Amino acid sequence: MSTLPSPAARTLAGPDTPFAVVDVDRTRRNIARLRARADRLGVALRPHVKTAKSLDAAALLHDGAPGPVTVSTLAEAEAFADAGYRDITYAVGIEPRKLPRVIALLRRGVTLRVLLDSTEQATFVAAAAREAGVALPAQIEIDCDGHRGGLQPDAPGLIGIGRVLHDAGCLDGVLTHAGESYFRLTAAERRAAARDERDAAVAAAGRLRAAGLPVPVVSVGSTPTAHAADDLTGVTELRAGTYVFFDLVMAGLGVCGLADLALSVVVTVIGHRPEYGWIVTDGGWMAMSRDRGTAAQPRDQGYGLVTDLSGTLIPGLVMTAASQEHGTLTARDGAVLPELPIGTRLRVLPNHACATAAQHHGYHVVDSACGTAAEPVIEAYWPRVSGW
Amino acid sequence: MSTLPSPAARTLAGPDTPFAVVDVDRTRRNIARLRARADRLGVALRPHVKTAKSLDAAALLHDGAPGPVTVSTLAEAEAFADAGYRDITYAVGIEPRKLPRVIALLRRGVTLRVLLDSTEQATFVAAAAREAGVALPAQIEIDCDGHRGGLQPDAPGLIGIGRVLHDAGCLDGVLTHAGESYFRLTAAERRAAARDERDAAVAAAGRLRAAGLPVPVVSVGSTPTAHAADDLTGVTELRAGTYVFFDLVMAGLGVCGLADLALSVVVTVIGHRPEYGWIVTDGGWMAMSRDRGTAAQPRDQGYGLVTDLSGTLIPGLVMTAASQEHGTLTARDGAVLPELPIGTRLRVLPNHACATAAQHHGYHVVDSACGTAAEPVIEAYWPRVSGW
Repeated sequence: MSTLPSPAARTLAGPDTPFAVVDVDRTRRNIARLRARADRLGVALRPHVKTAKSLDAAALLHDGAPGPVTVSTLAEAEAFADAGYRDITYAVGIEPRKLPRVIALLRRGVTLRVLLDSTEQATFVAAAAREAGVALPAQIEIDCDGHRGGLQPDAPGLIGIGRVLHDAGCLDGVLTHAGESYFRLTAAERRAAARDERDAAVAAAGRLRAAGLPVPVVSVGSTPTAHAADDLTGVTELRAGTYVFFDLVMAGLGVCGLADLALSVVVTVIGHRPEYGWIVTDGGWMAMSRDRGTAAQPRDQGYGLVTDLSGTLIPGLVMTAASQEHGTLTARDGAVLPELPIGTRLRVLPNHACATAAQHHGYHVVDSACGTAAEPVIEAYWPRVSGW
Repeated sequence: MSTLPSPAARTLAGPDTPFAVVDVDRTRRNIARLRARADRLGVALRPHVKTAKSLDAAALLHDGAPGPVTVSTLAEAEAFADAGYRDITYAVGIEPRKLPRVIALLRRGVTLRVLLDSTEQATFVAAAAREAGVALPAQIEIDCDGHRGGLQPDAPGLIGIGRVLHDAGCLDGVLTHAGESYFRLTAAERRAAARDERDAAVAAAGRLRAAGLPVPVVSVGSTPTAHAADDLTGVTELRAGTYVFFDLVMAGLGVCGLADLALSVVVTVIGHRPEYGWIVTDGGWMAMSRDRGTAAQPRDQGYGLVTDLSGTLIPGLVMTAASQEHGTLTARDGAVLPELPIGTRLRVLPNHACATAAQHHGYHVVDSACGTAAEPVIEAYWPRVSGW
């Protein structure tokens, strides 16, 4: 764990609000839960570090070892390389101007795996590998649900791309991401999504292999499918990111419970509008992000649910509106608006951990395994990697 | 202007994407336009620096002088104080734990004006001023449209709060913000909102003065009302923030044109999904924010409109979806999806300048007054203030 806070700020009553808090006990439990699943399913786990973007959080993923990770930016890849990570998948389609930084990492001994889904990309990746004289492992993105990028598993162009990569020593595998699983509201639907995800990746790998092209890596994953998959035969590795912190979107799906949410934002009451039934706080969208992920779910949680400073949920209290530095809390489900004087500190549980975490430079870390204090002790400060 | 980019990155074709760009010529024109309005209306202008959060951008507000500004965080107040600004309004309701930083700024000779709307706050502000032995100017927030905080102008408690502040030498004025004007779709409605905003502030000031309490400052403002107001009699100062950059929400209201938008995000094409009619870029919500402000307008602009690297709008091309590091562009209004090879750089005009700017550490600055180049020259890099 990184820098300890100053003595004056050693509980959540200390730092000026708003600020982000991570409960390390919940984080550890969330990490252990998916690791146990991956072990049962017989696949390697390659966590996506784009949620926490923290070397300290990442140290919990593989028992302190710099194991395999997935990143969303080259800035993350470089920060993790600096910290000794040597097996990194950059899971965003590659473009030519980013290759110099990729090659610089490869030359430092980092196995940086890039992603692509076109002959155009395969051609410039192969050319760059030959020109630089380095192994440049590339994975072919497969589309399993029409969510974003990728080739469909039966796409005519797949074999040609594989051959361009193979001929340059670059063909590393296939990768797919069931992004639509975030909108599958039942466990059965998510189990089906996990099977589709597996089937798409395995089918694409099979076609490439049938064409004589070796495919070492068959990579699948998203937090909802990783927690739903019942059979990953043919898959070599599982990726997931949000599972480390979880959030209200995941709780709304039933992938986790509210007691698993490891990220929250501490805010302070700065006003009351009894005529409207509002409590006003100093935590607006700058602290929470504009993410309204639960708006697409049966239970819309506004900008977040509210707990007291100890982490105990305040029933019926929801953050329903946000301006840049103001949050509005209202009561629902017949709850009475609690009397919370100006200066009262609360914690808000976010819709989307990745988006809320990105609004902060780092996390104050508490450990609920040490008991539930009214003003939890801050054990550490974990800085975040940011930028691109 | 701050740090120049390295020679290799001296056009928008240089830096790795995504990154934020400010057109300084448009910024200057936007600033001049509101200043001319304020002059005509006979009020002082106190720009809100929460949009750009940049000392370099702020230097354009008052011809390089550190004139009066509004801030949304104490971090902004401190950064601007460090740069010589001496007249700052912190326009978010004060709470007790923030007073030490307020008092530290006052002791440095900064006139830092705080905001409140309750007897509770007036009492602890008055006590802190007495204890510290400093003048602690406080303004009473007035609610003009039920948007957020503030007392209604006829609130019974107003005079009592004014008296608590006055007795401690703290009563500085009244302040209101027509936040609902962002949802007023016609110029006539915004003119009415500006009158309501003025009337609320002037009425509250009048009640306080009738009770024998001097009210030096009568402060109003929002970008839509500042650009709609036709008579600010009784008002002493006008605040606005977004007007410096403008954005698609403001353009959708008709407060500005698309050619006034000074902030954009440079992204790169990283994929194509012809079967869905998509172009995929490396600019997702991490670069644009999750703000979907135009969703509430008659013309929903998705996550943004798209221009080429020179800033020329590509008709019908819209960023319709975002994941963390992926943007999806689609064609609408019968437009044909343009052929944009992988590696093509584009600029995306955002819904909400404040939210998009907040996703970046700073701005690469171009000057469209120097002509429209295919690859505009980067004139400077302006860092942003961040955190709280």
